Amino acid sequence: MKISICGATGYTGEELLRILASHPQAEVVHITSENQTGADINSVYPHFGHIYHQTLTSMEQLDVVAKDSDVVFIALPHGHAMDAVKTITGHGKKVIDLGADYRFADTSVYEKWYKVPHTHKDANAVYGLTELFREKVKHAKILANPGCYTTASILALTPLVKNGLVATDSIIVDAKSGISGAGRGLNQTYHYAEATENLKAYNIGGHRHTPEIEQALSEFASNEVVINFTPHLIPMVRGILATCYANLKPGVSAEQVDDAFVSHYDSEYFIRLLGRGGYPATKNTRGSNFCDIGWHVDKRTGRVIVVSALDNLVKGAAGQAVQNMNVMFGMDELTGLTQVPLYL
Amino acid sequence: MKISICGATGYTGEELLRILASHPQAEVVHITSENQTGADINSVYPHFGHIYHQTLTSMEQLDVVAKDSDVVFIALPHGHAMDAVKTITGHGKKVIDLGADYRFADTSVYEKWYKVPHTHKDANAVYGLTELFREKVKHAKILANPGCYTTASILALTPLVKNGLVATDSIIVDAKSGISGAGRGLNQTYHYAEATENLKAYNIGGHRHTPEIEQALSEFASNEVVINFTPHLIPMVRGILATCYANLKPGVSAEQVDDAFVSHYDSEYFIRLLGRGGYPATKNTRGSNFCDIGWHVDKRTGRVIVVSALDNLVKGAAGQAVQNMNVMFGMDELTGLTQVPLYL
Amino acid sequence: MKISICGATGYTGEELLRILASHPQAEVVHITSENQTGADINSVYPHFGHIYHQTLTSMEQLDVVAKDSDVVFIALPHGHAMDAVKTITGHGKKVIDLGADYRFADTSVYEKWYKVPHTHKDANAVYGLTELFREKVKHAKILANPGCYTTASILALTPLVKNGLVATDSIIVDAKSGISGAGRGLNQTYHYAEATENLKAYNIGGHRHTPEIEQALSEFASNEVVINFTPHLIPMVRGILATCYANLKPGVSAEQVDDAFVSHYDSEYFIRLLGRGGYPATKNTRGSNFCDIGWHVDKRTGRVIVVSALDNLVKGAAGQAVQNMNVMFGMDELTGLTQVPLYL
Amino acid sequence: MKISICGATGYTGEELLRILASHPQAEVVHITSENQTGADINSVYPHFGHIYHQTLTSMEQLDVVAKDSDVVFIALPHGHAMDAVKTITGHGKKVIDLGADYRFADTSVYEKWYKVPHTHKDANAVYGLTELFREKVKHAKILANPGCYTTASILALTPLVKNGLVATDSIIVDAKSGISGAGRGLNQTYHYAEATENLKAYNIGGHRHTPEIEQALSEFASNEVVINFTPHLIPMVRGILATCYANLKPGVSAEQVDDAFVSHYDSEYFIRLLGRGGYPATKNTRGSNFCDIGWHVDKRTGRVIVVSALDNLVKGAAGQAVQNMNVMFGMDELTGLTQVPLYL
Repeated sequence: MKISICGATGYTGEELLRILASHPQAEVVHITSENQTGADINSVYPHFGHIYHQTLTSMEQLDVVAKDSDVVFIALPHGHAMDAVKTITGHGKKVIDLGADYRFADTSVYEKWYKVPHTHKDANAVYGLTELFREKVKHAKILANPGCYTTASILALTPLVKNGLVATDSIIVDAKSGISGAGRGLNQTYHYAEATENLKAYNIGGHRHTPEIEQALSEFASNEVVINFTPHLIPMVRGILATCYANLKPGVSAEQVDDAFVSHYDSEYFIRLLGRGGYPATKNTRGSNFCDIGWHVDKRTGRVIVVSALDNLVKGAAGQAVQNMNVMFGMDELTGLTQVPLYL
Repeated sequence: MKISICGATGYTGEELLRILASHPQAEVVHITSENQTGADINSVYPHFGHIYHQTLTSMEQLDVVAKDSDVVFIALPHGHAMDAVKTITGHGKKVIDLGADYRFADTSVYEKWYKVPHTHKDANAVYGLTELFREKVKHAKILANPGCYTTASILALTPLVKNGLVATDSIIVDAKSGISGAGRGLNQTYHYAEATENLKAYNIGGHRHTPEIEQALSEFASNEVVINFTPHLIPMVRGILATCYANLKPGVSAEQVDDAFVSHYDSEYFIRLLGRGGYPATKNTRGSNFCDIGWHVDKRTGRVIVVSALDNLVKGAAGQAVQNMNVMFGMDELTGLTQVPLYL
Repeated sequence: MKISICGATGYTGEELLRILASHPQAEVVHITSENQTGADINSVYPHFGHIYHQTLTSMEQLDVVAKDSDVVFIALPHGHAMDAVKTITGHGKKVIDLGADYRFADTSVYEKWYKVPHTHKDANAVYGLTELFREKVKHAKILANPGCYTTASILALTPLVKNGLVATDSIIVDAKSGISGAGRGLNQTYHYAEATENLKAYNIGGHRHTPEIEQALSEFASNEVVINFTPHLIPMVRGILATCYANLKPGVSAEQVDDAFVSHYDSEYFIRLLGRGGYPATKNTRGSNFCDIGWHVDKRTGRVIVVSALDNLVKGAAGQAVQNMNVMFGMDELTGLTQVPLYL
Repeated sequence: MKISICGATGYTGEELLRILASHPQAEVVHITSENQTGADINSVYPHFGHIYHQTLTSMEQLDVVAKDSDVVFIALPHGHAMDAVKTITGHGKKVIDLGADYRFADTSVYEKWYKVPHTHKDANAVYGLTELFREKVKHAKILANPGCYTTASILALTPLVKNGLVATDSIIVDAKSGISGAGRGLNQTYHYAEATENLKAYNIGGHRHTPEIEQALSEFASNEVVINFTPHLIPMVRGILATCYANLKPGVSAEQVDDAFVSHYDSEYFIRLLGRGGYPATKNTRGSNFCDIGWHVDKRTGRVIVVSALDNLVKGAAGQAVQNMNVMFGMDELTGLTQVPLYL
């Protein structure tokens, strides 16, 4: 299968290249970068030595890219995918967008939170949280790949919301992310000497993954869900941990909570249930497409606390994108995604 | 002033030594360690070279220790302070206990959470969260120094609870701690290769700092406060960040929240208010006795989110202990505690 | 191919399991651990969830282990392999020992540096630095897998020594290793709070990899090579960087140095030459079987400086062991070893 | 004493501010920053909250700065000090330059290595490696503060060179530095996700601290010293470790080596000798002005290996600058420099 990547030198692009190198059906035909057009990918990322020998081209060649490809991954900043997607689908090719442009059913929500006009409102994109929307993904032509915080949060909360076990106005997601989530762009906050041995919250009440989580949970709830979402920056490279709080509805038992998770995820390869009392750790998922989930019922307060962990660059980005590609093209969903977590 | 430390080789003991070395009134007369009795403190901690040249003695010499000292700091595991405190106070000397043994007014709460019988129920200890209980601290003979998570959480929430601005059954504290909080004892979880690049929650619903936070907040509230407290282990050495959530009572304005913090803390040197919208970062407090606080009002959900940051070994342990000592002995409260945070 | 691992719960054992999970010909039949006999490998290493479901057995079952296996990997502390190897080879099965017991042609060198009697002097083991001894590896029944520092140092220096370009009494190897090289055993030195943000040398003049490097280089030199080898502990998990110094013989040109490296390694997949002026970085090899090499000629001092980088747990241990297995069993040498470095 | 700092927002400037806050004689009167003129230092470095409340001014006000100060610290990139120094000394005030502009007795060496014309050749600056040149420092008007690598290397090697114990053409310094040494400027190499878990050498044969080390050692040797100096970037914030190799002259005993160090440094407070067989660790010096030194005699190879450790921002920059200030103004040399290392 012929694959191209628009925006191959950002961290998400790098991860797509890393994962696709082990995908037996994948052939990477074009990779683009507007800043480093003409460079060999090895000069940008020397760890690809003896693996990739490919020259970066420009989005100006997008027609050629689309013609030569079966599917194009877009790993660009939000606001930049819409024109590209029109061109690629115009050539009859499928697109997987790893940014936010196609994640919202209601494009006015996108416009409000991202401050960018949406120019492709009739796109009919499918939201690709694979485990929850697999049937739709199979037929997707434009696939909106979810955000990293979003994937961790929605996977943790959906069984509770769908089964009506929690008060939907009581949900709080306290999320923690490794620094790679901020991407490759330079910034004082991510300068080594200032980022290490440090810890802080940011964007309280205003992070753009909030409405994305609310949209998905609302789809499974009987009412509109509004949540608190607080992201934190953790001094490590990879990993997201979402600690999710909700008030159990009166009379809901711990066993009902257990059943909700087991019945929802037991047959999913990429979801590893650690059970009630289980403690996911980001390290156990590092470099892999797994999402680990554990939950706790606190009788003193009547709350359920769900903790989920995943690798923000894999299940939270490039891995899930490849998982969606596998589904879209009728391949075994696990193809190229069986890399063992790099615990050490 | 003559000072001794029981349990000088743990991390809390080490920090006491570090801080007291810069305290102009302090003279360290005895330091004890049961594992390393007879060793020079320099052989245990070579960074004290050219600073301390002192031999570790044993608790078996506690009578001598007490006689030679004006105050004894106890930095032992919980359950080990009670006998020592009786001996020391029997010599008419003051004690500052950095463990949990004297933190609970109701000793049955201690016995329930710590699974140890309390053998000194009539101790009349004072709970030393200095900014909140300064008047009592002045007259303390037995000072119970608060826990690290506790200090961060109580300082963050007290202005809201005291002013009746939040629903006291809605409080959730999602706390994150550097690994030094777990002490010097060896454990697979804190082995470098497994602790770095990792993140997890632990003791959900069961951490022993929970009832300590509840006790202090209940004192300022009009009713019994029951909270959710979730600790997390962060791959860094020092620092605690507490992200605290509570539902604002109907009609409470953002300005009322601001006023509560400013009126409560504006004259406190060790509390730095970053204001509404402020983001504390643990790095800004590292090695110092500061606690930084910022708060956020989320109108979408009606919640207030307070974030506090401090150094778990300083304001969360040894620094606050010295602050309490200064108050107990009528010295300037800042003495020996003006070390600038080691940002880098 | 049926494979067993003696000592599967140490870091080297864990890496063998990680790598073999992606090896299309490998089937892991037995794994042993004397401390955790009877436990599921998932309870020891939860990151193997959904990948391995295997119970740890004991070395007491070694006869069964040997009978059921085509090859047995031994990942035990030095001194423990010799009895096991005799048993396994007694069953006509091949052995790959990742420890030091079979690395020395002259067993008295082993006995001198390791302070253990050698009880299997007629073993006829092959030293498995694959790129240098491939022909012998093909026919090995007992394969002595090299040490991590050793692999980095020997690969860096062999082209110079073999071509007679440097004074063999002038060689200094200043090596730096991530902390995983010290294994899973608990020790104050590797306790997170003490290992992070720290840097030190250790075992100067006495590290056991010294005679191993000298043995291999001497084989390629016209005389006995004696070197200085200084290991350092670096606050990171994976990676070795060896900075090697030698005096160029009079008249040797920079181009001769270049030729020595290119002619020696140009066709090797796992050796990536970065050329004269190139700077290997451990991150570029992380999780992979690559060794990256760059070199520098300093005309001011007449010295050549060679820098090599590799992952101590892969090319420096488990990866090279699998590479040797592939060669020993006539498989493509790259099988199961094409994992892309985890740069992030 | 009135002190100003030109370039107060770089890491060296920040450290000067940190140290001077605890210096009982110091009053900081002006701080400058060309990028952030007009800002409060607290908005640049919030950890200075409740400590400094000062507005950054510009070098355009240098006349006022000089008039108001007894001494001016210059913490600017090389090439920028010379004009400023002329202005400040023109006002009769002393200067301590933390950059390279005044470090070379032979300004043509500066011009060759730094590629900048030297415009102040008759400056009569004193090279401020305090322990070695204390008498000259007392009378300095322009003080050239040494580099970080330089201080570690020169302190390690001087006793050997001065006593003629080693072959001066055999010296190799393999040095390792924390990332703060690269300063606050943004660069992909120091981006958290790329700098952590990484290790590499750089500037082999060409680092500008090379001629500075050679100049100082040559002063103590009977001949011109030419060395190899290899710097490495270590994934930690603070600390330099220099591993120095030299061939002992025939007949030199280990005891002579011991004597050289002890007689040279035994009365120095900031030099802590760990003795023969001692292993300095950067963590033991963190945040302090100490330099720890240990040495090893390898009889197999006839070499001596000296290891020194210090904090690159303190003894390697701001701390030594304050030490020099103390000497220049006749104060106790330890004033303001007794901060205990922050081991944790």
